[in-house]
Amino acid sequence: MRATVMFGAGDVRIENVPDARLIKPTDAVITVTRACICGSDLWPYKAMEPSEKGRVMGHEAIGIVESVGSDVRNVKTGDLVVMPFAFSDGTCVFCHEGLHTSCVHGGFFGTIEVAGAQAEAVRIPQADGTLFALPVGKDDALMPSLLTLSDVMGTGHHAALAARVGPGKSVAVVGDGAVGLCGVIAARRLGAEQIIILGRHPDRIALAREFGATDVVSERGDEAVERVRELTGGFGVHSVLECVGAEQAMLTAISIARPGGAVGRVGVPQNEMMPASLPAFYHNITVSGGPAPVRAYIEELLPDVLEGRIEPGRVFDRVVGLDEVPDGYRAMNERESIKVMVKP
Amino acid sequence: MRATVMFGAGDVRIENVPDARLIKPTDAVITVTRACICGSDLWPYKAMEPSEKGRVMGHEAIGIVESVGSDVRNVKTGDLVVMPFAFSDGTCVFCHEGLHTSCVHGGFFGTIEVAGAQAEAVRIPQADGTLFALPVGKDDALMPSLLTLSDVMGTGHHAALAARVGPGKSVAVVGDGAVGLCGVIAARRLGAEQIIILGRHPDRIALAREFGATDVVSERGDEAVERVRELTGGFGVHSVLECVGAEQAMLTAISIARPGGAVGRVGVPQNEMMPASLPAFYHNITVSGGPAPVRAYIEELLPDVLEGRIEPGRVFDRVVGLDEVPDGYRAMNERESIKVMVKP
Repeated sequence: MRATVMFGAGDVRIENVPDARLIKPTDAVITVTRACICGSDLWPYKAMEPSEKGRVMGHEAIGIVESVGSDVRNVKTGDLVVMPFAFSDGTCVFCHEGLHTSCVHGGFFGTIEVAGAQAEAVRIPQADGTLFALPVGKDDALMPSLLTLSDVMGTGHHAALAARVGPGKSVAVVGDGAVGLCGVIAARRLGAEQIIILGRHPDRIALAREFGATDVVSERGDEAVERVRELTGGFGVHSVLECVGAEQAMLTAISIARPGGAVGRVGVPQNEMMPASLPAFYHNITVSGGPAPVRAYIEELLPDVLEGRIEPGRVFDRVVGLDEVPDGYRAMNERESIKVMVKP
Repeated sequence: MRATVMFGAGDVRIENVPDARLIKPTDAVITVTRACICGSDLWPYKAMEPSEKGRVMGHEAIGIVESVGSDVRNVKTGDLVVMPFAFSDGTCVFCHEGLHTSCVHGGFFGTIEVAGAQAEAVRIPQADGTLFALPVGKDDALMPSLLTLSDVMGTGHHAALAARVGPGKSVAVVGDGAVGLCGVIAARRLGAEQIIILGRHPDRIALAREFGATDVVSERGDEAVERVRELTGGFGVHSVLECVGAEQAMLTAISIARPGGAVGRVGVPQNEMMPASLPAFYHNITVSGGPAPVRAYIEELLPDVLEGRIEPGRVFDRVVGLDEVPDGYRAMNERESIKVMVKP
């Protein structure tokens, strides 16, 4: 079968690889009908060490179940399913607590160990706990929004929960990528009164406003901090969604939280140390978040997608076939595209 | 009047200073009947740059109101009052939210700007919001426990709240100083099932056990992490109370939290950067806490002290007069004493 393989920084190729197949009785294999490129795929795209074997990329997909192992009960051949970016058994103590990304039998797609979904097909470990069957046909018009339930919409929602967004709260979203934009949707959905987006790309800002952003801050660093304070009576916001992961973004996030506020971080940190520990301490700011247990959120978010109350699929501004995936990486890396959908 | 003045690292003297007096109409002056030395006083004791003027130390006290400014309504001359380590107006947006340490008209005692309470008397800014009148006589047997409401008991309680302690939870307390020991009391009071104290001083550990600690870990660093994991089915604890502030303590705290758990930090951070940002992220660990709004907690904790359900005053293992305060600093710094009470 054909799949997207990254061999090093900037080196993404479509290759023939062995067909995805069942390995364990708890596995399923799905034929991928939609996949996408993630902002987090750009980190290895910028920095991966050259590798002869490479890594099959992609951790977001919708597909049709092609085969299931003998222990699989919850999905069957022919089901249309959404695949969260992490697999999980659905039964361990952490899955019961809603933290599927810490499942004791879990893991992540698109790693060295488990192949990714920017491919014709993908093996799904722990299929019963991982996959969620969708009540629509494979070419439903809602497909883009449904696809975001595999990562970015659930991740934006996680950031909002970690940042304790609620009715009447003031919120800032650091980052205008697909996750930040979904964070705006999540903040509005949870009742935020003021939603400030920190970003500077006109197309993204326009979409953020349509999603519910009430204010835009295009400055950076200290000037951005100053501007957010001006917009919030001098104190900063109750909730900050940190959707970038870079050191400067985290520093800004902590600096714009009001005393007693919370930062929900979902951008993968690019530094081992967290800046501004001390101001965070003096202002009693809570820092929370991490990889989003998007599997836990599908039940909650799906009705809003199906009934059109939220349209996170609007973050996709380009659709490519498998052959064009390498150019999709380039386009996202050069900020030509917000998020690229793949139809293998 | 006589007061404790720190002139530099290791240089604490009892000096004659100008009498405490009313400066603003919202001030009160109290005659100090009990004060104490805090673990956080040991940071400048170790590292303060030499100063000719020096700094009047002390931020915890009980005293009798001697005079009040013309705007003071809530306390009157002769009242016995407890003084939280931060002053606050009690009326601003942050005080209303219970975060008195971020009061817009607030500040801290024992700083360059506002004199401290290891003295015969102390000026209390924002007296109406700051002071809490006690329903007992000035030599009541409960005085040691009541005195902890000015800092360490409220701070232990804040750590427990920030760490989301609750019924049935597993808890670890990093640090066996007075705050850590009060953290044990707080964790038990909030219903924790397992309380692991990390410390190695036999007298403190013995007290921790009497306060409700179920397990003791005397190892440090990686060995301590391993031992806590062994005690918690391999996963770590739901809640960690970080009551030290040193880099290694924070690293340990994050490493012993289970996925989805929380670290409540109240030890003043000695580093600008927070270690282990990345593991905290991958395990969705929440880091919260800061200076405790102890003023907010007095109402809640006072009945438990008055009715003897908690005995935080047992952390005091030495009582000194004002002249012996310099030796009290030495004794706490050398770990000869857990916490020193001062009777000026």
